[in-house]
Amino acid sequence: MTNMNKQVKLISRPVGLPKLTDWEISSSEIPSINDGQVLIKIIYLSIDPAMRGWMNEGKSYIPPVGIGEVMRAGAVGVVVESKDNAFQVGEHVNGLLGVQEYVSMPGSELNKVDASLAPLPMYLSTLGMPGMTAYFGILNTGQPKEGETVVVSGAAGAVGSVVGQIAKIKGCHVVGIAGGADKCKYLVDELGFDSAIDYKSEDISKALRTHCPKGIDVFFDNVGGDTLDAVLAQIRFKARIVICGAISQYNNTTAVKGPSNYLALLVNRARMEGIVVFDNAAHYAEAAQEMGGWIAEGKLKSREHIEEGLENFPEVLLKLFRGENFGKLILKVTDE
Amino acid sequence: MTNMNKQVKLISRPVGLPKLTDWEISSSEIPSINDGQVLIKIIYLSIDPAMRGWMNEGKSYIPPVGIGEVMRAGAVGVVVESKDNAFQVGEHVNGLLGVQEYVSMPGSELNKVDASLAPLPMYLSTLGMPGMTAYFGILNTGQPKEGETVVVSGAAGAVGSVVGQIAKIKGCHVVGIAGGADKCKYLVDELGFDSAIDYKSEDISKALRTHCPKGIDVFFDNVGGDTLDAVLAQIRFKARIVICGAISQYNNTTAVKGPSNYLALLVNRARMEGIVVFDNAAHYAEAAQEMGGWIAEGKLKSREHIEEGLENFPEVLLKLFRGENFGKLILKVTDE
Repeated sequence: MTNMNKQVKLISRPVGLPKLTDWEISSSEIPSINDGQVLIKIIYLSIDPAMRGWMNEGKSYIPPVGIGEVMRAGAVGVVVESKDNAFQVGEHVNGLLGVQEYVSMPGSELNKVDASLAPLPMYLSTLGMPGMTAYFGILNTGQPKEGETVVVSGAAGAVGSVVGQIAKIKGCHVVGIAGGADKCKYLVDELGFDSAIDYKSEDISKALRTHCPKGIDVFFDNVGGDTLDAVLAQIRFKARIVICGAISQYNNTTAVKGPSNYLALLVNRARMEGIVVFDNAAHYAEAAQEMGGWIAEGKLKSREHIEEGLENFPEVLLKLFRGENFGKLILKVTDE
Repeated sequence: MTNMNKQVKLISRPVGLPKLTDWEISSSEIPSINDGQVLIKIIYLSIDPAMRGWMNEGKSYIPPVGIGEVMRAGAVGVVVESKDNAFQVGEHVNGLLGVQEYVSMPGSELNKVDASLAPLPMYLSTLGMPGMTAYFGILNTGQPKEGETVVVSGAAGAVGSVVGQIAKIKGCHVVGIAGGADKCKYLVDELGFDSAIDYKSEDISKALRTHCPKGIDVFFDNVGGDTLDAVLAQIRFKARIVICGAISQYNNTTAVKGPSNYLALLVNRARMEGIVVFDNAAHYAEAAQEMGGWIAEGKLKSREHIEEGLENFPEVLLKLFRGENFGKLILKVTDE
């Protein structure tokens, strides 16, 4: 222990893609803790598309990260000091710990994770926020029925890959949209998707006509933009469009591209609905239990893409927006 | 009776606003009828925004009107000859009778209307398709709850005016968006809306902030375009957006303007859903009964804008798209 706490702070609001100069990497003393608090050494940081939204000024589902503040991030860490009887030194926890090496937090804001049941990074992917987002988004909002056609964008990502596998478990015909032949091969060969569309080399509309000959019943969208429009043009009667994200639009410097084909909702009496995972917090444990069962049965697989070094956070975040990760993007801060 | 049947046929697919040359007015013999059929003399034609969609090639919720075919229209008429025992000469009916003076149809495609209970034009407005659209759209899809804020675009139109009045009956705070001071005054003074926004002279976003200080729970949209975007920016948690139409976009020669602010659905966990009235056909009678009760109690008022002369159809349709009608636009073909 060096007695110092390295932190990544947001120092200016990015316009378009975040620049390296939007961040400051600095060190301060490791915080002391008060009664009811826990000191955590952070091991793995979750790198998520939602981070881009947290960097913008303005009303959203969660307040923006303030200028000069440590960047918000989901993370897994280990308790190194505790003044909360519910947490013991050496236990692992996850929560919104931030892009830093250490954090002191009230125990009430932490969840324990069991490193003996699953590898720690999995608590940031399938058993963490992305997995929960996928689980509640596809089941509660997408409501896939056996035999229906389900399309997922960002299909090789942390959320999309779980969405597609759950839809397969529910007996659907599942088509993923992802970037690159490797990711597409992975979706079909490893995760059991029925087919995959490489948006980098294929015409999405044409490929959807081939792979979804009956049309699309459920679309789980992480991407937005032209992908959303292409799908809307091929939805079926009473289709459900789950709006989970729009990574294609997050770094726009012009207005978001709204879906020109939204009147397909009218023609098909279809529904488009936004989801935010935090609304389901009361049911995370049940979801984790069911997904844990699927993992044990080999029906639900995950893949993590682990980069290293807290100081690399600004660059690693850009990999996400460039689609260079393959699997859930995680930044390792220190050894377990 | 002249033994001739004047008809308005679509002879070319319009680009943008329909032109007078997209129509042909011609006469043919009054059709004879076969067993099971009924000959109807058409009295009132319903002039609806949906007509524009029916004129386009391509998949929709109903096939397009073919080139050279009589234009589709809802209408009310009187039976002048019948080979269906269920229909007697002199009875009034409504159905998709078309823009013509006479039509022969199977009785199974007709609904009887009672001219002694309500004036015939009302069977094309509040007790017809627009009223049914409003009733099922706001109640089943909008699901307004007491105390919620409901905004309606095209509020002085045949659908919008009923939507707003039903939302008032349900105890909501109701704001209408309409074009012109006269229509706005009518919404508040005659129909009991809490306030109205004149899109021709006011900044919609600013006016919504004034009239919907808590934000918007339900939006019933007949207009689309910038109006939809302005509302999306001010929706509340779990808001419901009912997509009934997009009259601002129907005559576009460029792509439909998709809602740039659609990610407000995500931030607010909100839902946008399209409706088509025909899906509720099995429940029209119940709806008519409930609305008839409200009409009798003076809680539900309607206003019809009646033009005359079948041959004026092409010009009257343009009045609709220019917003020149005030009340449900109806074309009178002959005296009752």
